[in-house]
Amino acid sequence: MRFPEGFSGGATRAGIKPSGNPDLVLMRFGVPVAWAYVATTNKAAAPCVLRGRQLYASGRGLRGLVANAGNANAATGKAGVAADLRMAELAALRLGVRPEEVLTASTGVIGVPLPVEKIEAALPQIVLGPLADPVAEALMTTDTRPKMAEVTLPGGARVAGVAKGSGMIHPQMATMFGFLFTDAEVDPEDLRATWPEVAGSTFNQVTVDGDTSTNDMAAIFASGVKGKVERGAFWEAVEAVARELARQIAADGEGATKLITVKVSGAASEEDARKAARAVAGSILWKAAVYGNDPNWGRVLAALGYSGAELDPERVRIELEDIPLYDGGALPFDRAEAVRAMQRSEVRVFANLRLGPFEAEAWGSDLTEEYVRFNAEYTT
Amino acid sequence: MRFPEGFSGGATRAGIKPSGNPDLVLMRFGVPVAWAYVATTNKAAAPCVLRGRQLYASGRGLRGLVANAGNANAATGKAGVAADLRMAELAALRLGVRPEEVLTASTGVIGVPLPVEKIEAALPQIVLGPLADPVAEALMTTDTRPKMAEVTLPGGARVAGVAKGSGMIHPQMATMFGFLFTDAEVDPEDLRATWPEVAGSTFNQVTVDGDTSTNDMAAIFASGVKGKVERGAFWEAVEAVARELARQIAADGEGATKLITVKVSGAASEEDARKAARAVAGSILWKAAVYGNDPNWGRVLAALGYSGAELDPERVRIELEDIPLYDGGALPFDRAEAVRAMQRSEVRVFANLRLGPFEAEAWGSDLTEEYVRFNAEYTT
Repeated sequence: MRFPEGFSGGATRAGIKPSGNPDLVLMRFGVPVAWAYVATTNKAAAPCVLRGRQLYASGRGLRGLVANAGNANAATGKAGVAADLRMAELAALRLGVRPEEVLTASTGVIGVPLPVEKIEAALPQIVLGPLADPVAEALMTTDTRPKMAEVTLPGGARVAGVAKGSGMIHPQMATMFGFLFTDAEVDPEDLRATWPEVAGSTFNQVTVDGDTSTNDMAAIFASGVKGKVERGAFWEAVEAVARELARQIAADGEGATKLITVKVSGAASEEDARKAARAVAGSILWKAAVYGNDPNWGRVLAALGYSGAELDPERVRIELEDIPLYDGGALPFDRAEAVRAMQRSEVRVFANLRLGPFEAEAWGSDLTEEYVRFNAEYTT
Repeated sequence: MRFPEGFSGGATRAGIKPSGNPDLVLMRFGVPVAWAYVATTNKAAAPCVLRGRQLYASGRGLRGLVANAGNANAATGKAGVAADLRMAELAALRLGVRPEEVLTASTGVIGVPLPVEKIEAALPQIVLGPLADPVAEALMTTDTRPKMAEVTLPGGARVAGVAKGSGMIHPQMATMFGFLFTDAEVDPEDLRATWPEVAGSTFNQVTVDGDTSTNDMAAIFASGVKGKVERGAFWEAVEAVARELARQIAADGEGATKLITVKVSGAASEEDARKAARAVAGSILWKAAVYGNDPNWGRVLAALGYSGAELDPERVRIELEDIPLYDGGALPFDRAEAVRAMQRSEVRVFANLRLGPFEAEAWGSDLTEEYVRFNAEYTT
């Protein structure tokens, strides 16, 4: 996948990941880009997040991005703050811009000092180019595959994104990045105002284990090189790319064998729809049931019930794919057919709360013995 | 264990559990007892919870308790409400009291009609006596052992309790009951006012998988037969019994090999202390780390960070037993010693937030491959 115009990037092996795989990303923005940014609410947020928030508050355009995988530079105290700033300075030097024009992002192990000297040594090796693939690959931690998505708008402007997950599932290997790029010209205020809404209905609806990392961030950068586009089409494209990346992140959850999709409709509010969908996608009992091909709708109903969303169990309707399981009470259903529906690589459950017009989706992955093994044994 | 004076109970096989084990409990209260009650916040609460709330709102004393295991009578619609009332009527008939003097409690599978005819046939078989053991045993669902605890007050009055768990872990096998009995004479208003506080610091601090069942309830019944006791000593005894039962529930989480205890101190508020402790005890990453004997403090810090409690990561101190792991930054520690501390049957972690005087405990169990297997395969 190619970046939209105005963006180039590359990656190299800095030796931060024990695996020796590429782990350092540099991106050059050809012009100061408009951008929008949301980041983790974790109170132990990493220095890159604290710095990113400051840059964002300043309202200035950005000229570059430097990111590493393999070390989250979180819980590293004042030395971590200094290391993050140094990383920005080194990237700015390489790009010929000012440090406050460069966003930093780190993901990986918590509590280990960031080896800035390795970043300093490796940055000059990075060759910048039009392809996003090396960037997506270098951002991977426990991800098993790189995550990319793109949409071309009428007129030729593009929205393209890269992401890394493999969770919000791994504070130790923090965590979720979503970076979107567009060469469309967008009103910077609209970008800032609307992005949190889009991120809220996409990246924030991914739940792999309910843990919110110290380093999560989702940002969009707009170079404007291709000129103005129709606003509705633009945001539709952004949402489609963000949604596709969110689905890729959930599907690649650690140890996951299936993508879980939950769609809640009929909610009394947007927020209710989102939290009800998240509660089901994040219910470890439903996740275990999906792993075991068990159409156990009681777990879905219970999760809706504790989600905090307004609910009347006698009004709720639950369907697995197109198989009705519950409608104010248990429905008779063909168990063999339901088990077959649960054996697919994507298992979709639909809940209609019948209380209002609001709907939302959420995505997760099944809970497997492999997940437990992986997370029990990771640092031992 | 014997019930305090004024209480007798018994159990029998009604054929509700597929295993054929005892599954029906009847208790007689010799006098109308003062009582206090808290129950699930799940919006899909079962009829027994809805009825219990109404009885409690009436302020009347109770004369008996009828409970079954094997069927939660939840998500059963209007027929479920009628079945619950019928169960109370049958018990009242047997006890020679009015139905509105009998509390009902059901736990087990969700969404299956309650076989009231089996309850009707079995109730006459129950022999009431002074021992609590048969009652605790009949309440078990996926529990591997009955849960009981008692404290004797100066002067001879007693507080004794039975509980069942094996989670809030199993909405399908709903869920947590805690019933405490005392023959001390207690101001009924004090009982109602203080019980939610005690339940909040004990039963509500147990987290096995973050799921809140449709049927959870915790109640205390006071016969007053033994006369007045010193208030401080009474509540200390109640808290000790409730805390012990909470620990037994956590330790017996499905598939669990260890009890996880989290103590948070230095919090800015009581609520902060509780939610910070719960977040760590419920973090599936920390639970997996405990299973794997991995002193992965980054997962503890991350859970504190997303708990919602006020937090400054540079002030936090984390200890595993008496081994300091983190104090505003990673500390050097003897890894072999820490691994040994994690191999015990109870793994205790202490977090000092250094922001205020408040503290709280929470309990959970480790996340094991056996848990996943059990919950993936339960109904298949």
